[in-house]
Amino acid sequence: MSRPNTLTKGKLLNDIHAVIERSGLSDGGCVSFHHHLRNGDGVMNLILTALGEAGLKGLHLEATSLFPVHAPLVALVEKGVIASIATSYMSGPLAHAISRGALKTPVRLRTHGGRARALDSGEQRIDVAFVAASAADCRGNLSARTGRAPFGVLGYPMADVGAAQHVVAVTDTIVPFPACPIDLSQDRVDMVLQVDRIGDPAGIGSGATRPAMDPQSVAIAGQAADVIAASGQLIPGFSFQTGAGGISIATAQAVGQAMTTHGVQGSFACGGISGFHVKMLEAGLFRSLMDVQCFDLEAVASRSRNSAHQSMSASAYAGPHVGGAVVDELSAVVLGAAQVDTDFNVNVTTRSDGLIIGGSGGHADAAQGAALTVVTTRLTAAGFAKVVPKVTTLTTPGSCVDVVVTGAGIAVNPANAALQDRLGAGGLPVVSIQDLAAKAAVQASQATPPRASGRVVAQSEHREGYVLDEIRMIE
Amino acid sequence: MSRPNTLTKGKLLNDIHAVIERSGLSDGGCVSFHHHLRNGDGVMNLILTALGEAGLKGLHLEATSLFPVHAPLVALVEKGVIASIATSYMSGPLAHAISRGALKTPVRLRTHGGRARALDSGEQRIDVAFVAASAADCRGNLSARTGRAPFGVLGYPMADVGAAQHVVAVTDTIVPFPACPIDLSQDRVDMVLQVDRIGDPAGIGSGATRPAMDPQSVAIAGQAADVIAASGQLIPGFSFQTGAGGISIATAQAVGQAMTTHGVQGSFACGGISGFHVKMLEAGLFRSLMDVQCFDLEAVASRSRNSAHQSMSASAYAGPHVGGAVVDELSAVVLGAAQVDTDFNVNVTTRSDGLIIGGSGGHADAAQGAALTVVTTRLTAAGFAKVVPKVTTLTTPGSCVDVVVTGAGIAVNPANAALQDRLGAGGLPVVSIQDLAAKAAVQASQATPPRASGRVVAQSEHREGYVLDEIRMIE
Repeated sequence: MSRPNTLTKGKLLNDIHAVIERSGLSDGGCVSFHHHLRNGDGVMNLILTALGEAGLKGLHLEATSLFPVHAPLVALVEKGVIASIATSYMSGPLAHAISRGALKTPVRLRTHGGRARALDSGEQRIDVAFVAASAADCRGNLSARTGRAPFGVLGYPMADVGAAQHVVAVTDTIVPFPACPIDLSQDRVDMVLQVDRIGDPAGIGSGATRPAMDPQSVAIAGQAADVIAASGQLIPGFSFQTGAGGISIATAQAVGQAMTTHGVQGSFACGGISGFHVKMLEAGLFRSLMDVQCFDLEAVASRSRNSAHQSMSASAYAGPHVGGAVVDELSAVVLGAAQVDTDFNVNVTTRSDGLIIGGSGGHADAAQGAALTVVTTRLTAAGFAKVVPKVTTLTTPGSCVDVVVTGAGIAVNPANAALQDRLGAGGLPVVSIQDLAAKAAVQASQATPPRASGRVVAQSEHREGYVLDEIRMIE
Repeated sequence: MSRPNTLTKGKLLNDIHAVIERSGLSDGGCVSFHHHLRNGDGVMNLILTALGEAGLKGLHLEATSLFPVHAPLVALVEKGVIASIATSYMSGPLAHAISRGALKTPVRLRTHGGRARALDSGEQRIDVAFVAASAADCRGNLSARTGRAPFGVLGYPMADVGAAQHVVAVTDTIVPFPACPIDLSQDRVDMVLQVDRIGDPAGIGSGATRPAMDPQSVAIAGQAADVIAASGQLIPGFSFQTGAGGISIATAQAVGQAMTTHGVQGSFACGGISGFHVKMLEAGLFRSLMDVQCFDLEAVASRSRNSAHQSMSASAYAGPHVGGAVVDELSAVVLGAAQVDTDFNVNVTTRSDGLIIGGSGGHADAAQGAALTVVTTRLTAAGFAKVVPKVTTLTTPGSCVDVVVTGAGIAVNPANAALQDRLGAGGLPVVSIQDLAAKAAVQASQATPPRASGRVVAQSEHREGYVLDEIRMIE
């Protein structure tokens, strides 16, 4: 017999004011969001605009990533609705505004694993975690695999849910109880806010998720695959991560070809997952995919139909605090770079002139975890050298990088002498990193600008939580 | 490039002494266990015996349930290795020893939901949670669906994992990384202890999971199904829980027949899940199963192959603290009783003489949550009346019970006048609970013994945490 219970008042709301009232969110509070809808996300703009209209000020925004679609947040920064930001990646107008001094408080740029560490450890508390869901039921069971804008997995907000005083699901699709399949259970969700539209699923796959076809990229990808083959890592049980850039995908194709040729069955591929990972799984090259976010709709569909396509939380993926994360089991990772320097340090956070264009995401986590960390880059881009004496911004320490592949030569970190020997013995064109920097300098038509000297607008944080580098205001 | 990291020392251990050393477990510490292997569990005896041999004393045992297979714990109680116990159910030699005064500290008998509440709220801390897993990988990803003794879901230990200082997986099957499918993620597990054998999977299905066939049980089941049909609850979206006893299963069959006849598609069945639930799912009678533990191997197999067969944690299933649990969405629950009294109070904890034979499990949780709570019982058993003026032990308050079905008449709780009218209008044999008690008294060949008067050996706890009743020592 059901009895009245003060705790069971309905979770289903359709008004942000009710969320504010129930959560007690007030000026200076911390709100968090995740980025599985990527550049198709409609939730962060909608909620933060509504919080601003409700009169809230001075909020701390704890976002997993920020994209060009979040341009409307610039106005909220200017109005003082948002007073500070921590994120793992930011690009587009908001990032540019930060670089030009829009915020007084420096933005904290964390790695995906470092962010999970900060939340799990209690270093960063959240007042209200907003969790986008493509479908939800009235009790707060959330699905990322059904509804109008399915995005596949809920890897990132798991840490937010654990750290938050209040968890608010945001959905445009209410389904009968129980939601199926459930990606986040009702006992972790306090309220369900129904909105017209959580975003545009077409925006999920907005990044480059096709292999690069130009000769230079194909050459770099081929060399990266050769490095992996020669490294001794390409053995049964091989595990692999790449980004979603064109060179990374071309590298994955070349590695897949090498696996087929050598009859190597791998164990898993991990990270953000795209259609090309799905093809490798379905071709039997890997036993499992470990997916923290889907990079395209092919990955979303695979997650729905294939139990070997597994989800994982940010902590499981990349946490430096969990006694061994999935990245720590990687045989090899192939990562991109905006700049690499002669100490093998990598910058994926700013342009040469210091303008914020990204951030670590999982870059520094995977680089530290993997047995073999391969960084691919051209020597120059837009006239600027990409292999330089000193990176403009330090994202990933050179001590985590084994080898830099440029298409114009391969440089091995001297700390990994065994790898240097293997690649040399394999006949690969190994040169010194200084040689690559010299070639890049010759090829560059523009000088690397001096470091900006304005006040600090952002801090690049090591995954363990200390500040690796500072990013300064650009005039 | 992998770098040495003090946090990534191996999780894989094969010696309980290493667990004690790493966890710092000491005299008076709290250890927890779950019961998904039911009467086939080999983990609790193995670990607690080893802890005793290692010289530990005065442990608090936080167990989800205790079965006859746990008889070896009696000796550990006598030796002082175990000083106190909290559990949701206990039967067999340990329960009998407790009833006879083996422990100085009263056992705390919690509901499944009340236990999750105590852990989630911080009321009960755990030093080391031991989590049986049928398979695990070296990083601590756990599976309940692969290995030598698969048991299907890990619903109960989820709260333990959240409340514990240290989480130790116990497995007899180490699989290559990553385990697949993963039922508990590596970031929640600190150590993996490899043992020879976690238990006997045949013991999972040791309870009665076949429909009762005797005429009296069939009559009770038929009347219970008639009550549900007449109650107005049997409409599209109908949801249902039953126990695993013979009458409950016979009732489920009768309800399934009524659903088919009336063309009602239900939403979900929940609780412990058996093969008969699986048949109802596969027949299209329900959209989903919400499974907190598998009661037999048919359920284990279904969980592996059917994504509509979903798992849930104890908090999601039955927590009174989560703003609405799965039990709060139930249309109807059919529950058994050792005794029912004329205030509709139910005892499933002790025999008439006060000997401990069970405990709430999810009984009181589902009774409070469901829109319609049906209690089935015979009038007498072993010569003792089962409908009595006052239950020997209060497990589930009468305010949560709508109707008692005995085969010799149906009594409706006067608090639910609308139900009384509906059942009467449906032509069902409605009588007063006093009439049933009078009939039971006539039919009984033995007088209900007076309440035991010894010291308190156990406390029956309300799901919200206060003491409902005390259980006293039997000479």
